[in-house]
Amino acid sequence: MIQRTDKHFAGALQDKIDNLNKPKGSLGRLESLALQIGLIQHTLTPELCNPCHILFGGDHGIEREGVSLSPREVTWQQMINYGKGGGGVNMFCRQHGFKLSVVDVGVDFDFDRGKYPHIVDRKISHGTGNFLHEPAMSADEWRRALAIGAEQVDACFEQGCNIISFGEMGIGNTSPSSVLMHLMLNIPLERCVGAGSGLDHDGIRHKYEVLKDSVENFHKTMPEDVSAEDTARYFCGLEMAAAIGGMLRAAEHKMIILVDGFIMTACILAASRMDEGVLDYAVFGHCGDEGGHKLMLNAMGAEPLLHLGLRLGEGTGAICAYPIVQSAVNMINEMDNFSHAEITKYF
Amino acid sequence: MIQRTDKHFAGALQDKIDNLNKPKGSLGRLESLALQIGLIQHTLTPELCNPCHILFGGDHGIEREGVSLSPREVTWQQMINYGKGGGGVNMFCRQHGFKLSVVDVGVDFDFDRGKYPHIVDRKISHGTGNFLHEPAMSADEWRRALAIGAEQVDACFEQGCNIISFGEMGIGNTSPSSVLMHLMLNIPLERCVGAGSGLDHDGIRHKYEVLKDSVENFHKTMPEDVSAEDTARYFCGLEMAAAIGGMLRAAEHKMIILVDGFIMTACILAASRMDEGVLDYAVFGHCGDEGGHKLMLNAMGAEPLLHLGLRLGEGTGAICAYPIVQSAVNMINEMDNFSHAEITKYF
Repeated sequence: MIQRTDKHFAGALQDKIDNLNKPKGSLGRLESLALQIGLIQHTLTPELCNPCHILFGGDHGIEREGVSLSPREVTWQQMINYGKGGGGVNMFCRQHGFKLSVVDVGVDFDFDRGKYPHIVDRKISHGTGNFLHEPAMSADEWRRALAIGAEQVDACFEQGCNIISFGEMGIGNTSPSSVLMHLMLNIPLERCVGAGSGLDHDGIRHKYEVLKDSVENFHKTMPEDVSAEDTARYFCGLEMAAAIGGMLRAAEHKMIILVDGFIMTACILAASRMDEGVLDYAVFGHCGDEGGHKLMLNAMGAEPLLHLGLRLGEGTGAICAYPIVQSAVNMINEMDNFSHAEITKYF
Repeated sequence: MIQRTDKHFAGALQDKIDNLNKPKGSLGRLESLALQIGLIQHTLTPELCNPCHILFGGDHGIEREGVSLSPREVTWQQMINYGKGGGGVNMFCRQHGFKLSVVDVGVDFDFDRGKYPHIVDRKISHGTGNFLHEPAMSADEWRRALAIGAEQVDACFEQGCNIISFGEMGIGNTSPSSVLMHLMLNIPLERCVGAGSGLDHDGIRHKYEVLKDSVENFHKTMPEDVSAEDTARYFCGLEMAAAIGGMLRAAEHKMIILVDGFIMTACILAASRMDEGVLDYAVFGHCGDEGGHKLMLNAMGAEPLLHLGLRLGEGTGAICAYPIVQSAVNMINEMDNFSHAEITKYF
């Protein structure tokens, strides 16, 4: 059960922020961020402890329809690569002191577990069903994936972590993200479909047609009042389901959730339809160039911290935003106030 | 004498970046940044060493015309405050390991030098002339301010610094910045004038009228073919002149120059009219909300790293961008390449 943050506490936080020795509002986004984090932790002196990043991997049935330029095998190859420390996510985790967990929930490959001990084995299946023709997963698989995500977050929480980010590796996973955005925000599908990791115009057109047919089939087979949860189950990858479960649990623990790019934004959108309280804990790290990402963030009223044109996935956009979050926390803790600093209050 | 970066080396750098194990271009702005830094340092393995931040302080004659909401005394009060470690700039310098120097080149206050040893005393005068009626400084003062900026940079360079940022404290200094932007980029003055640290509509109107009259008087008294350098001298604060001198010297040393917000962007614009090579070394840290800042950056073809709505000055927007620069450097050095990582090259 997610507890909403106590908005009555905002006044005390805003007072503290307004009396730091700077023109009011002059630290811009850092000020609103400090306010949010103060609300999450219900304190005037928030802190960030033991940041963790959980990267879930899973393959997608829809990938068989040629919706992605990259082949399915890249999913398992990259999962192995993260253990060698050579991926984008590794580098940013090292830079900002994140503990990285790499979790296989649905990768289409049998890892040699002795050889790759860094990959946590929570495999539910070798990938989802093809949602052009059938639900991506069964209700049982969905529940298991949510639970696995939650358990991974529990482990971080028990180690003293209070800020967490999620990443994904799953070739094809912009497709379910586009569909969730379309169905949950009522944005026309064509505005939700983008180039993924590099499709050309014809490729995007094909992807759109596949997704349009998928949505039509979904409407034919599911009841008219289908729940958000069943919608998510119908389209999501297992790695996305695990992230959704992880986000919901992180909010229960009152942890700050650093949200990555297009796919993780779709996941927290789905999570928010299961419990809208999750958004109180969400800090949006990055807005990428993927067609609908900006549109989705706007529709959710989200203000991402970075705009760096990243589209690697893995959670890199969330982790890169970490020092900005740290700056906001430092501001509210370390900056002197007007009366103590003996400065004429200025504007 | 500034040496331009060797653009022929860009091919080798781009090859290395394109073969890191990620879809081509998927690290967005980090990739173009790594390319620029590789060019600056002429190496495939760039590094950032001993970052320094130099904050110059100076007062402005034009402040007497009521162009700023904040009183002049805030300049000296804040200069003192930086020594206590309680300012915005202190906090961000600590966070990112910057050595901070606070240099008085023209503050309208006699500091007790025993009491405030952290303020480097290079005072040229107690503030500039009022450019509504006269040049802000004499040719001799201008040359001295440039030289002081250059000397401060030399000191950093000798300590092994290869990345430097500049900040300013000087109530009123958005006014000369707006004028430089207008005169050097031919952008209508009304689009160059903004709220500074918080003017309302009438305040902005008044500021605009003062600056319009100042520019008219400038054109009446200076020759038609007035040089960019004399234009800068006519309007700049001493703290801005020192920053311009510092930027030019930093580029001579092939240091990375992290450019802060509106005022420092105006300074590097002026510097670039004295030697355009300086722009090869400039990394724009932040685009704020000040009226013309985005316009000025666009006109210069600059792509700032952050958009956080900061308008504190002091160089905070530059320092906050440092971890992004570090990420770009980490990327090109630490990320594995496709052939070594045994990953199908993907898109």
